[in-house]
Amino acid sequence: MIPLVMLISVLSLAFAVYLARQVLAADEGTPQMQEIAGAIKEGAEAFLRRQNGTIFMIGLGVAALIFVLYAFVRPPNPNDPANPFNMAVATTLAFCFGALCSGVSGYVGMFVSIRANLRTASAVRSSLNRALQLALRGGAVSGLFVVAMSLLGVGGLFVLLRAFGVADEKIPLLIVGYGFGASLVALFAQLGGGIYTKAADVGADLVGDNVGDCAGRGADLFESTAAENIGAMILGAGLATAAAASGIHFNKGMLGVMLFPLVARAFGLVASIVGVMAVRTDENEDPMSALNRGYYIAAVLALVGFGVATHWLLNAPERPHAWLYFLACGLIGIATSQAFVYITQYYTEYRYRPVREIAESCQTGAATNIITGMAVALECTAVPTIVISIAIVGSYMIGNAVGIRGAGLFGTAVATMGMLATAAYILAMDTFGPITDNAGGIVEMSHQPDDIRKKTDRLDAVGNTTKALTKGYAIGSAALAAFLLFSAYLDEVRNYGFPITSVDIAKPEIFVGGLLGAMLVFLFSALAIRAVGKAAYYVINDVRAQFKEKPGILAGTERPDYGRCVDIVTRGALRQMVLPGILAVAMPIVVGVVFKAVFHAGAEAVAALLMVGTMTGILMATALNNGGGAWDNAKKYIETGMYGGKGSDAHKAAVVGDTVGDPFKDTAGPSLHVLIKLLSTITLVMAPLFI
Amino acid sequence: MIPLVMLISVLSLAFAVYLARQVLAADEGTPQMQEIAGAIKEGAEAFLRRQNGTIFMIGLGVAALIFVLYAFVRPPNPNDPANPFNMAVATTLAFCFGALCSGVSGYVGMFVSIRANLRTASAVRSSLNRALQLALRGGAVSGLFVVAMSLLGVGGLFVLLRAFGVADEKIPLLIVGYGFGASLVALFAQLGGGIYTKAADVGADLVGDNVGDCAGRGADLFESTAAENIGAMILGAGLATAAAASGIHFNKGMLGVMLFPLVARAFGLVASIVGVMAVRTDENEDPMSALNRGYYIAAVLALVGFGVATHWLLNAPERPHAWLYFLACGLIGIATSQAFVYITQYYTEYRYRPVREIAESCQTGAATNIITGMAVALECTAVPTIVISIAIVGSYMIGNAVGIRGAGLFGTAVATMGMLATAAYILAMDTFGPITDNAGGIVEMSHQPDDIRKKTDRLDAVGNTTKALTKGYAIGSAALAAFLLFSAYLDEVRNYGFPITSVDIAKPEIFVGGLLGAMLVFLFSALAIRAVGKAAYYVINDVRAQFKEKPGILAGTERPDYGRCVDIVTRGALRQMVLPGILAVAMPIVVGVVFKAVFHAGAEAVAALLMVGTMTGILMATALNNGGGAWDNAKKYIETGMYGGKGSDAHKAAVVGDTVGDPFKDTAGPSLHVLIKLLSTITLVMAPLFI
Repeated sequence: MIPLVMLISVLSLAFAVYLARQVLAADEGTPQMQEIAGAIKEGAEAFLRRQNGTIFMIGLGVAALIFVLYAFVRPPNPNDPANPFNMAVATTLAFCFGALCSGVSGYVGMFVSIRANLRTASAVRSSLNRALQLALRGGAVSGLFVVAMSLLGVGGLFVLLRAFGVADEKIPLLIVGYGFGASLVALFAQLGGGIYTKAADVGADLVGDNVGDCAGRGADLFESTAAENIGAMILGAGLATAAAASGIHFNKGMLGVMLFPLVARAFGLVASIVGVMAVRTDENEDPMSALNRGYYIAAVLALVGFGVATHWLLNAPERPHAWLYFLACGLIGIATSQAFVYITQYYTEYRYRPVREIAESCQTGAATNIITGMAVALECTAVPTIVISIAIVGSYMIGNAVGIRGAGLFGTAVATMGMLATAAYILAMDTFGPITDNAGGIVEMSHQPDDIRKKTDRLDAVGNTTKALTKGYAIGSAALAAFLLFSAYLDEVRNYGFPITSVDIAKPEIFVGGLLGAMLVFLFSALAIRAVGKAAYYVINDVRAQFKEKPGILAGTERPDYGRCVDIVTRGALRQMVLPGILAVAMPIVVGVVFKAVFHAGAEAVAALLMVGTMTGILMATALNNGGGAWDNAKKYIETGMYGGKGSDAHKAAVVGDTVGDPFKDTAGPSLHVLIKLLSTITLVMAPLFI
Repeated sequence: MIPLVMLISVLSLAFAVYLARQVLAADEGTPQMQEIAGAIKEGAEAFLRRQNGTIFMIGLGVAALIFVLYAFVRPPNPNDPANPFNMAVATTLAFCFGALCSGVSGYVGMFVSIRANLRTASAVRSSLNRALQLALRGGAVSGLFVVAMSLLGVGGLFVLLRAFGVADEKIPLLIVGYGFGASLVALFAQLGGGIYTKAADVGADLVGDNVGDCAGRGADLFESTAAENIGAMILGAGLATAAAASGIHFNKGMLGVMLFPLVARAFGLVASIVGVMAVRTDENEDPMSALNRGYYIAAVLALVGFGVATHWLLNAPERPHAWLYFLACGLIGIATSQAFVYITQYYTEYRYRPVREIAESCQTGAATNIITGMAVALECTAVPTIVISIAIVGSYMIGNAVGIRGAGLFGTAVATMGMLATAAYILAMDTFGPITDNAGGIVEMSHQPDDIRKKTDRLDAVGNTTKALTKGYAIGSAALAAFLLFSAYLDEVRNYGFPITSVDIAKPEIFVGGLLGAMLVFLFSALAIRAVGKAAYYVINDVRAQFKEKPGILAGTERPDYGRCVDIVTRGALRQMVLPGILAVAMPIVVGVVFKAVFHAGAEAVAALLMVGTMTGILMATALNNGGGAWDNAKKYIETGMYGGKGSDAHKAAVVGDTVGDPFKDTAGPSLHVLIKLLSTITLVMAPLFI
């Protein structure tokens, strides 16, 4: 199986390179367009370079911490007589490798997108179809790269550790460091990028959403793929062991069950490639329909691949229909991702009641706009929660029906794999957003004719929708994966000989652990939102200073110093991302260590922190993402001419809501997805400290 | 003990009547002042009458449901061979009695406060001290009435059931219906009152904050006192039984332990009376200092009473220092209430960083004001959470050190009693708020001289502070009491022979129960906030219609029809309170019944819903209350002349924040306190359904 996974991953990477070359070979438009695109590129690259420097330093510190912990502090693992020093080296290297791959994934996504924007802008002058394809394929480079890199990383580490003679079932626990490295980088990429983008919005709208949306989301989905693969492998090893103990032998043995997530994901890659290449439109169609068609193709093919993989790897002669049950779990996952797409659209598009209500309330001013928007934001958590609840217990019950201990939890893991099967396509659509957004900006700033601008506006509107969808999808997959990662953590704790049997919030100290987890989500959101405000403040001050120094700017006779402004945002964003980042890393560790010392209940209290933090995080992220999206589109709805259109009092009120929503939906919300998963991976890696 | 409790309660009621007569006998000011006060009184009374009608109908329905449930559906209780029909009658009657007492408590508070406002306004013309005393004593009528009624109700039911031959330890479980009745009425009183007050704010500011703040908070604290007394009695019975089994006998037996909460509360009543009567000021002192002095007197006396009660009732010859441990738990409770008072002040007063930051951000517009305010709202949950965490595990560990099974949980109950010991004084300060607010309105609208207005402004500012403090206090006590009520629920479930040993959120179905609990808090907040918007919308429409019908209003030649407007708000508020109310009542029942049918885990899933819902509710309520308070005071800070003062752009931005904060701090936040406790009492009463 491993060679198949590696082969598909390498071919996908090759295909991504082919797509990148295709995009880069396209026409680059007029010199004026190139100048504007050059400015965008420069700002984004300068930021990412410096951000990566900061993350590198933080990562080094955490790596040293992990090494010391595993080499000197960790209690001996009774189930694993390995030399602690070897263990420390393996975990630390896996961490560094995960961090590196995550960083590279983010970088590649941005590299292509800040070049695809110019080509898309140029192409739109001749053909909408050509522009759509360029933007989507540019996005697909990132999508394919992220998923394939993650498969290669996990698969490669697996092969490597096997070569060192490590038993199959012990490998996933050794490579949890990889997942942690990936999520740590993802957290800072989302935070830093989100702060930078939104703070820069306030000052100069030169940089677009590239950094937060491409680099951040790329790292985010990379770590999802990595962490959830590893978690599912841990559960798979447990399932196969339990099955063997009761005389049930899967077709391809334990290895087959453990590698199922990688195989399913590899098939999903192929499905996504076909989907991306199938997208085409004509001048009159709604481009969203074309993207949806491509998605359906990818989803159906992914389901077929899922059927093949479950039949091949998750069946046993003693349980001849087991694969059908697991296929059903996968179907639940795919259906959940569909449901999230619809729910997100309902709450954030102006075709539906919620956004229209917000727009209507703009007539009575900014305050009623904010009140209505907050009500919508809080309300829109209800249906997704119910969907996730059904998906979790549904896949658990179907898995359980197979009749092997551990099959229920593995069922939720299979559902997660189903949801993530089309991740590459979803990510392509997501990166499509900032590419078309930038293309629109380039077309506008280079004063192209009106009919060209109308076309980029259409693409841009579609891009806004796909960005909102991806956020819904990221939350949904984080929620569904949560259960799988909890179980992996509990497995890991038991593996250290600690007999944890429950996470009982009826005990005061465990209840308090949970309460602190919920508090972490509130405090983290506060810091993320505040960070945007602070970084924006630096920009505003600099803009004011420049107006003073160069009085000619307002008259148009002097050029403002954009570079200085970008530099200030960069430093501000990097400074502001540190505090929330440290909080997310430090809090589970502190709670685990303190509760271990005071109550001898470190592992269980941390589990409660993780679980309740995840619940609250899912709700808060949904509220922030959808609330922000709804305010944005309420403004767009008014701009179509409703309630007085652009420039009216209602529009002014709508602008307030849009501005408030920006840090919600582009900084705090997306960072919360990553926080949820970082909590899972950090507790996995730090588990030895709490026991 | 019972006669002592009853005697103190009756004397306190008598004293409340004496205070009321004293207040009513005071001078009523000029005819113009009387006319304005009359309008306020009329609106508030009309609303409360109709609201009570609506609540009565809802209460009837719930009572019928309880009766049917206990008479026909409830499984036989193996520990209690009582006739199910008797049990049904007892529980239903207790429910009705609790609902009635809660309603009466709210009514009395409002009755006095809408009369004390006029007297305070009149008194301020001659003496600030006299005005301060009138307002506080008017508030004390409500505070004393609420606490004494609750003691009389619980004590009276206890005596009654004893007379029917029910064993002591079974009585608390029979009167949980009393707590549920109280919290159901409290929920609707807070919701309806909050919606009415804030919606009316938008239209005509005629009605003041009486309905939401007096009637709502009165019912709120009544139900706290009742529910927490009953919960503590359940735990006390368990503690005494466990002690007896290990050969430890408390000084006054099981009855002494069970009645400890009532005795401690009765002593607290006396302490509060002394505190209220000791408050006096002169023309130059900050009135807040005078109120604080009174509070310290009450707190010290309550601590002394606590010492007497613990030494008398919670000591055992076999554990000669037990009372000291429990006294320490009580001290933790009193210290927690102090800590909440300080934290709330820090986050909501403009002497400190958070409000100043919000005010500063108003300079760059409404959007940055909202963003900064949201960040403060989310951030301010951190420290209270840590305080509550320390209080819960601290009192648990100290209780545990006594060395009797169940003493740890009883320790948290004692801490709750400590926190609530000065409830009557706190409630007096709370009702002081709307009285002085109204007095200020009366003085302003009757065109009194400037120096009089300055005095009422000073009193009004103090009132705003005390209102914010009480909300912090209500949240803190709800959080501390949560643990006690969870334990009572689990005891109740075990009492039905269901062997629940843990609330294990590592099981998927229990995790989902918790997730739904967190979601309930988000959805309930959304509905409460939206309700204000909708009710306000009716008002705005009517105001516009009146302007059209009577063109002379704007010119001042025609009088607007205030009555019609008030009538419309009333109907709107009552209609809008039903949906969130029903949601709060129905969701735990539906989850319990469905999870029982599907997973045979109804009781545990509901426990998870209750516990995670409580955690999320505490955080959300803190964020909404303090966020709203901070916006309000940021506006006030600017009105002192900062950033351009009244009428400046910064002030306009601040007004937007203040308006947004209104439904947060006066509708959704306070309703969430009650929701948390309603969840506890409804699960207690409905427990038989889930087993």
